[in-house]
Amino acid sequence: MPVVQIDMLEGRTLEQKRQLVKKVTEAIVETANCPPDAVTIIIREMPKEHLGKAGVLRSDM
Amino acid sequence: MPVVQIDMLEGRTLEQKRQLVKKVTEAIVETANCPPDAVTIIIREMPKEHLGKAGVLRSDM
Amino acid sequence: MPVVQIDMLEGRTLEQKRQLVKKVTEAIVETANCPPDAVTIIIREMPKEHLGKAGVLRSDM
Amino acid sequence: MPVVQIDMLEGRTLEQKRQLVKKVTEAIVETANCPPDAVTIIIREMPKEHLGKAGVLRSDM
Amino acid sequence: MPVVQIDMLEGRTLEQKRQLVKKVTEAIVETANCPPDAVTIIIREMPKEHLGKAGVLRSDM
Amino acid sequence: MPVVQIDMLEGRTLEQKRQLVKKVTEAIVETANCPPDAVTIIIREMPKEHLGKAGVLRSDM
Repeated sequence: MPVVQIDMLEGRTLEQKRQLVKKVTEAIVETANCPPDAVTIIIREMPKEHLGKAGVLRSDM
Repeated sequence: MPVVQIDMLEGRTLEQKRQLVKKVTEAIVETANCPPDAVTIIIREMPKEHLGKAGVLRSDM
Repeated sequence: MPVVQIDMLEGRTLEQKRQLVKKVTEAIVETANCPPDAVTIIIREMPKEHLGKAGVLRSDM
Repeated sequence: MPVVQIDMLEGRTLEQKRQLVKKVTEAIVETANCPPDAVTIIIREMPKEHLGKAGVLRSDM
Repeated sequence: MPVVQIDMLEGRTLEQKRQLVKKVTEAIVETANCPPDAVTIIIREMPKEHLGKAGVLRSDM
Repeated sequence: MPVVQIDMLEGRTLEQKRQLVKKVTEAIVETANCPPDAVTIIIREMPKEHLGKAGVLRSDM
């Protein structure tokens, strides 16, 4: 059941995403005590101009 | 008021999205007892490498 | 795979939520051409003071 | 801490996004009484065919 | 159309939320060039034990 | 920067949430190659009647 949405800057490789899904699922299975097939992970990538921190676009930092 | 966010794999046609919005709105109006113009639906599509199930990328299945 | 998040005002009955999940899933299965067990629906309820429209809290309308 | 997710139609300029992040952060800092660097803003753009209002795609309006 | 979701720690007063919705809507109307009634804001509050920063619960900080 | 939203059924202990945030952050730092303090995790719990799978409420399963 855990549905995990990960919003992050674009730029990771396919292999990094593969490992991200693997390791995050393992972490949730271990700590939330649920089976692996209960875990759904959605990755959403964004460009730097779509992320604001302290009022400034990341693309302007 | 109901705001509906639908995250799904890319690949549906424009006509499928047209019907998806129509039928989901009808379902919500009927069951949640609200007017059609209260319903906002946001569709977000993702590639298979952005979806993880049971620790594995859908693009690897 | 479609993950559906429905944010709506609190106040619906359990039966309304039962029908909401049933009918929205049927609508998605029919239009997005996916099996029922691929559809996950998350309902999130909120009080009127957590909803803003046109700059005004719903609880103030 | 406030994490702000803004889903909106595509088409705004970089400068509009710059000002959006600046002004929304200022509004939150002023009203929620938190420091600027606590505010994270995520902008997600969508095409008109991914937005449904009253059961109709915006691209059909 | 802009749908704004604000996830923040619980504890703000009703008046703070009133001003938050007012000022954030004004900021979006001014910068994204849309009418006030196009802006929907959803506030979600969370306890400190539901927020993690740098691997630590806020309630443990 | 990665913002992680975890929607899951209510019922985990504080210690489980503590470990969940710790281990998920470690998994993201390791695979997405970002510093720990870039990772924000939001946990949202829901009752079984707010989760639908295959058209059925979890509270009815």
